[in-house]
Amino acid sequence: MTSPAVYRFPVPPLAEMPDDIRSRIEGVQEKSGFVPNVFLALAARPDEFRAFFAYHDALMEKDSGLSKAEREMIVVATSAANQCQYCVVAHGAILRIRAKNPLIADQIATNYRKADITPRQRAMLDFAMKVSREAETVGDSDFDALKTHGFTDDDIWDITAVAAFFALSNRMANVTAMRPNDEFYLMGRLPKA
Amino acid sequence: MTSPAVYRFPVPPLAEMPDDIRSRIEGVQEKSGFVPNVFLALAARPDEFRAFFAYHDALMEKDSGLSKAEREMIVVATSAANQCQYCVVAHGAILRIRAKNPLIADQIATNYRKADITPRQRAMLDFAMKVSREAETVGDSDFDALKTHGFTDDDIWDITAVAAFFALSNRMANVTAMRPNDEFYLMGRLPKA
Amino acid sequence: MTSPAVYRFPVPPLAEMPDDIRSRIEGVQEKSGFVPNVFLALAARPDEFRAFFAYHDALMEKDSGLSKAEREMIVVATSAANQCQYCVVAHGAILRIRAKNPLIADQIATNYRKADITPRQRAMLDFAMKVSREAETVGDSDFDALKTHGFTDDDIWDITAVAAFFALSNRMANVTAMRPNDEFYLMGRLPKA
Amino acid sequence: MTSPAVYRFPVPPLAEMPDDIRSRIEGVQEKSGFVPNVFLALAARPDEFRAFFAYHDALMEKDSGLSKAEREMIVVATSAANQCQYCVVAHGAILRIRAKNPLIADQIATNYRKADITPRQRAMLDFAMKVSREAETVGDSDFDALKTHGFTDDDIWDITAVAAFFALSNRMANVTAMRPNDEFYLMGRLPKA
Amino acid sequence: MTSPAVYRFPVPPLAEMPDDIRSRIEGVQEKSGFVPNVFLALAARPDEFRAFFAYHDALMEKDSGLSKAEREMIVVATSAANQCQYCVVAHGAILRIRAKNPLIADQIATNYRKADITPRQRAMLDFAMKVSREAETVGDSDFDALKTHGFTDDDIWDITAVAAFFALSNRMANVTAMRPNDEFYLMGRLPKA
Amino acid sequence: MTSPAVYRFPVPPLAEMPDDIRSRIEGVQEKSGFVPNVFLALAARPDEFRAFFAYHDALMEKDSGLSKAEREMIVVATSAANQCQYCVVAHGAILRIRAKNPLIADQIATNYRKADITPRQRAMLDFAMKVSREAETVGDSDFDALKTHGFTDDDIWDITAVAAFFALSNRMANVTAMRPNDEFYLMGRLPKA
Repeated sequence: MTSPAVYRFPVPPLAEMPDDIRSRIEGVQEKSGFVPNVFLALAARPDEFRAFFAYHDALMEKDSGLSKAEREMIVVATSAANQCQYCVVAHGAILRIRAKNPLIADQIATNYRKADITPRQRAMLDFAMKVSREAETVGDSDFDALKTHGFTDDDIWDITAVAAFFALSNRMANVTAMRPNDEFYLMGRLPKA
Repeated sequence: MTSPAVYRFPVPPLAEMPDDIRSRIEGVQEKSGFVPNVFLALAARPDEFRAFFAYHDALMEKDSGLSKAEREMIVVATSAANQCQYCVVAHGAILRIRAKNPLIADQIATNYRKADITPRQRAMLDFAMKVSREAETVGDSDFDALKTHGFTDDDIWDITAVAAFFALSNRMANVTAMRPNDEFYLMGRLPKA
Repeated sequence: MTSPAVYRFPVPPLAEMPDDIRSRIEGVQEKSGFVPNVFLALAARPDEFRAFFAYHDALMEKDSGLSKAEREMIVVATSAANQCQYCVVAHGAILRIRAKNPLIADQIATNYRKADITPRQRAMLDFAMKVSREAETVGDSDFDALKTHGFTDDDIWDITAVAAFFALSNRMANVTAMRPNDEFYLMGRLPKA
Repeated sequence: MTSPAVYRFPVPPLAEMPDDIRSRIEGVQEKSGFVPNVFLALAARPDEFRAFFAYHDALMEKDSGLSKAEREMIVVATSAANQCQYCVVAHGAILRIRAKNPLIADQIATNYRKADITPRQRAMLDFAMKVSREAETVGDSDFDALKTHGFTDDDIWDITAVAAFFALSNRMANVTAMRPNDEFYLMGRLPKA
Repeated sequence: MTSPAVYRFPVPPLAEMPDDIRSRIEGVQEKSGFVPNVFLALAARPDEFRAFFAYHDALMEKDSGLSKAEREMIVVATSAANQCQYCVVAHGAILRIRAKNPLIADQIATNYRKADITPRQRAMLDFAMKVSREAETVGDSDFDALKTHGFTDDDIWDITAVAAFFALSNRMANVTAMRPNDEFYLMGRLPKA
Repeated sequence: MTSPAVYRFPVPPLAEMPDDIRSRIEGVQEKSGFVPNVFLALAARPDEFRAFFAYHDALMEKDSGLSKAEREMIVVATSAANQCQYCVVAHGAILRIRAKNPLIADQIATNYRKADITPRQRAMLDFAMKVSREAETVGDSDFDALKTHGFTDDDIWDITAVAAFFALSNRMANVTAMRPNDEFYLMGRLPKA
């Protein structure tokens, strides 16, 4: 299911995984046509796998004042700053699909200040980058700036939590040398036939 | 249970929390005599609360090649670099208790290179700091350095995962302005009577 | 030929450009099917245009101990560090074509340490990044490291000069808000029919 | 009086110290019940010892528009940024005593922006940190900000001089590996009986 | 014409240089009484030599809203930040001559914020330093700040282009270990007899 | 004796200074022909003045394993990194005189790695810069590197203390906006008649 060079740590055979984990992986395989390597990389640690994806889903799949595309923008911008190849490539693909925009992921990954986004989204990413890079300096004026763009306290929590979760994810991916699946690179770049 | 100034986001009344969360909080209260504010801060988001503590327990409570005190050393060192007041003060207390050493937490928080630790622990913290501050540069030579000190691949995963999890935790605490409970400051500093 | 929002500074009409510049632009249009915005952005300053492209061609088009793909690797890696959207997107396209590899540009742009490159290319990019980010610290040991990989003095000059030229180019593109043409994003990602 | 492992450089025997230095050390011993290691560390260099403590006393003991507790806040905040274990632990103790607040030192050492201090003290520490970390950028707007909080020119000199003196002190302590005495860790943490 | 220790790469004999390059070098020798080492350093690469000096002259010799002295201020300030010995020493000399001010170059090289310059020149150097050190963050507010000082779009291009060109030049000089000629150190420091 | 624009804080009239301070200033005036502004800047605070110059003389005037020129090299290199105009210009002059070398100060101020110094002096400055910029990371390997060049423990203390003292001095000069006297710029640049 993956080459032995995929990451620094061994992947357990599918047959040896706990049922719930194997089942989630088979579901993703069926839906997407391939298994994103993050599922394989974390399967060696079932408890961490479960917590990781529970956290991920709680942030990325639920209803929110931020659209799903906006949440992916946060992932791509902060993961690029952390030089996380897996997250930039994989979530770049998801962002292109969710935003229905084939250019947006590369724009945000290289310099989000020059991307085709709204001023509200720019303010969101400025804050997310501050959370990701120097959260210790976040203060009242940062909250005020977001509120002038109409963000609620719940939205601000969401921006924070997405940036914080991928601070974790980027570090796991970089140290384990998690490799983005080849499939991600082209996803969302071509017009639907 | 806490003053309204404890953090930037409101804490739901205990009575309105889902049963499993209220129950965990009551258990901690009973065992520790107070409720660490992180439980209250995250209770507003039940799904995130559950994932956060599941992840935490999977890393910090299980058996590992790293002692519990060593895992707390990683928390204190990386949280100090991230200027996370909650995590340094709260986990500093836990570290003093687990290491049975009233000086170790302050030593590690200010400059872990000068703390009373073994060369193996120094190598562990050097790696953890690299994961926390510049994971994108971690490479083979870092793994090799750890292995000369006898760390296994599983140990290296544990160091990485603890540093990565608190990268998340530090950012949540800094943005929500989570306040360490007063009780933590003195814990583990006095000889057991 | 371009939207008025392409960059901060106005582009002169093609008819008002000096003959040699208009002629070069028409040649590129004919060959590529579009005019990369860097040609339009710099056309307002004919003398700078001529010097810029003369320098570019002297480095990127000539024979060298570095392949053309390798020189583009240097452009992509250093431009990503400088967050230059134009250069990462445009030269990413050229790199994919020259390397006949649809994945390589995104890999190098996000974290060249994890790209599918040879150890020799890794050493080349380590040096190029040092030239780009902290040339003041380059010393004998950096030259020695390159020589163990077989690089000659002429090759080292080439690595240096490419990194230095794009230090200039990245700054011009970032300040003028030069926009990568839409055409670049997909180039070199699909198998030749 | 101290273990041979206290610091990198040897401490002269008390009997061999010049009279004025031995006398000062004996006075401190009598008053505090122990000799803070900084006195021993510097005793090897009598002229530097005398200048150091003359400077220290001129700044920390005199009357000033800043309270003694406020001056210790500056010491703790800037020494934490410089990762100076000796100064954070020793002056943290003095701060707790002078401020009659058992929590304040740990709060300021980990993230002074979240400490229980007044807005005026926050402005004082913002300035002190700028002096400590990037004095070359201090300009008129920094002076203006302090004056809106009522600081006089003399107060601003005092903030500057304390931050500057501990820039010296932190470097000496870090290089000599000066060890905070065990006594400091608990001082000021317990209610007076 | 120069010692063999002048730089890391060999200088071709004058007789072997292409006619146009030898002729330019002889012209400089005649006018200045010596050959600045940058001409010798680049002569090994005729095409790069021609492009480099064409670019240099297009920026530094033409008419501009910036005086020639002001353009040299940009060179000295940004080259000092890049720790480029050749450019600080050689262009420091030119700055002293063009500004008819024997102190200005050393002032700007050490801390341009404290130099004897006008507020307009201070704004120019603030912008130039941002271009040199973090061009990726340049945005509308930076342009607005320059316009309040009367800078036109053309002037802003000039500031940008000079800072960008010396970003290239500083990197070439640092890697090739280009040595400033002894003659530069004293030029412009003495009153004209 | 100085213009009112010399620094941010007022200088007391000579007649109002304490006798010992006025006397030292008059002595310097007599010997040098002018009064370096640091004496005037600090005279407003007699106790700090006395401690500052006592410390300075204890480090810079005494016998040492480092020559006086070498100690001035440390001052110039670290003060340049701290962008301290007063110290670079004033001590640059002293360095030229003590080293009898009109070029050395500008070389060291811009990039000490390319200055005409011995490998032993290079090691000394590498260490001094580490003390000045990141003393918290100094460790055994730094001491070992110095010892291979023959530096004794006493020499290492001297390097440390000079770098530490000017960490103080640079901050005072930058915040008070201490201006180097015009006389310093040309001192030591001309051959003795």
